[in-house]
Amino acid sequence: MNAERYLLKKKEIVDRALDEYLPPEGEFPPSIHQAMRYSLFPGGKRIRPILALAAGEAVKGKKDFLLPAVCALELVHTYSLIHDDLPSLDNDDYRRGRLNCHKVYGEAIALLAGDALLTSAFQLLAENEKLPSGLPAVGLVKEVASAIGSRGMIGGQVMDIESRGKPPEANLLKYVHKEKTAALIRVSLRVGALLGGAKEREFSALSSYGENVGLAFQIIDDLLDEGPYIQLYGKKRARREAEKLVKKAKDELEMFNERGEILCALADFTARRKT
Amino acid sequence: MNAERYLLKKKEIVDRALDEYLPPEGEFPPSIHQAMRYSLFPGGKRIRPILALAAGEAVKGKKDFLLPAVCALELVHTYSLIHDDLPSLDNDDYRRGRLNCHKVYGEAIALLAGDALLTSAFQLLAENEKLPSGLPAVGLVKEVASAIGSRGMIGGQVMDIESRGKPPEANLLKYVHKEKTAALIRVSLRVGALLGGAKEREFSALSSYGENVGLAFQIIDDLLDEGPYIQLYGKKRARREAEKLVKKAKDELEMFNERGEILCALADFTARRKT
Repeated sequence: MNAERYLLKKKEIVDRALDEYLPPEGEFPPSIHQAMRYSLFPGGKRIRPILALAAGEAVKGKKDFLLPAVCALELVHTYSLIHDDLPSLDNDDYRRGRLNCHKVYGEAIALLAGDALLTSAFQLLAENEKLPSGLPAVGLVKEVASAIGSRGMIGGQVMDIESRGKPPEANLLKYVHKEKTAALIRVSLRVGALLGGAKEREFSALSSYGENVGLAFQIIDDLLDEGPYIQLYGKKRARREAEKLVKKAKDELEMFNERGEILCALADFTARRKT
Repeated sequence: MNAERYLLKKKEIVDRALDEYLPPEGEFPPSIHQAMRYSLFPGGKRIRPILALAAGEAVKGKKDFLLPAVCALELVHTYSLIHDDLPSLDNDDYRRGRLNCHKVYGEAIALLAGDALLTSAFQLLAENEKLPSGLPAVGLVKEVASAIGSRGMIGGQVMDIESRGKPPEANLLKYVHKEKTAALIRVSLRVGALLGGAKEREFSALSSYGENVGLAFQIIDDLLDEGPYIQLYGKKRARREAEKLVKKAKDELEMFNERGEILCALADFTARRKT
């Protein structure tokens, strides 16, 4: 199956699960539940939960068991977008051609909708009580919290903001790419691997795959909107670096044989996407 | 021991633990770690973690085992204050006579410091792998997430904002008191009880104690700053209602005999505090 078909098929599954896990939009207080759903649907490609599902499948995990936790990754992603787009941060009115949450529901409700999505994410991560390895499922909460906290994604957001208006600097940019984008993608693979019952070497291979795909993903993002990476290195080098990272990611998949094929296709897709 | 002495003694323990669990303020990126610590220290009375410790002690739990999770409750409280004080919500420049986080570090860093504290809270809740009951510790994450999400604390904040500038309405005010304030206090008792290894009837007694103390706490808050409760019912009825709730809370402590004494004193303290 090619990457596009796989993504479309899995998006349907992820979207149905997200719809089931979230409070209905009529539930009291309606404004917050509407705002949460407004930002979550229709949503983008669902890359993070789908990479997690693919990691779980690569180690033969069961889909139903995987779903709550992989959906948590999309809630985290959505919360980070809502907060990032607020006037006091990036002040973006539109995303994916659509008015942002704070333009529709106001800043207060948007901020709280982000908070609520982050909170729901941890609730979903706590759905399973045990991992197939027999390890306690709090491990998932620890993994995600450490990837998205001040030593991870939030740290990246902070430095992204603080480096605005200054000439791009290589080490700082590397930190921002690693923490702001790659940390959540990397932990998505780790969550899928843990839920799938990965052995230790499978776990570290998938984790390294995730980091490399995450870094490539952000370079392509910068390529698509002329971000700092392009100012620093130019388009040609950016494309070459993304290809190199994707190759490194794919090299990690060898041990999975044909069960690694879809992850391989997803890595290629990431580095060649046009949106 | 009286409530004031107990609170002072435990505040020291909680503060030392918080200092240990949080990244040092020099850690990269410094602005976020400074902002997190600025809002957390010196802090208030630490009522929520201390109630949790007292609940744990009432059922004979071990202090060291309790500390990470009870500190998580203070992180949640601090995150909620930072976000509440932001210009797009309450727009408060000061709290406890001190400039608020966003006045010192700017709105963007304050918002992200709140996000990071919430994230760290879940990390601390995932520190223990098992509860004394043998139940998996993800139960703590579920308890807290459900108490502070859109169906709990955040729901209360939403309705608090949306009811501003309108004449206070009894049912709505009850909802705001219950969710915005009592939900976190109630879950503090539940976390302490679970970590202490409470039996089922102890757990529900402590939970009900927490709800009543939480409701009394908010009425006293309204009394101290002439909040909606006072506009609706007047000071005399507010004081009477708070006393009634505290009595209900104390009635729940009977089964704990002398091990319930400190919780009893803390309930009285709550309803008689002057700040």
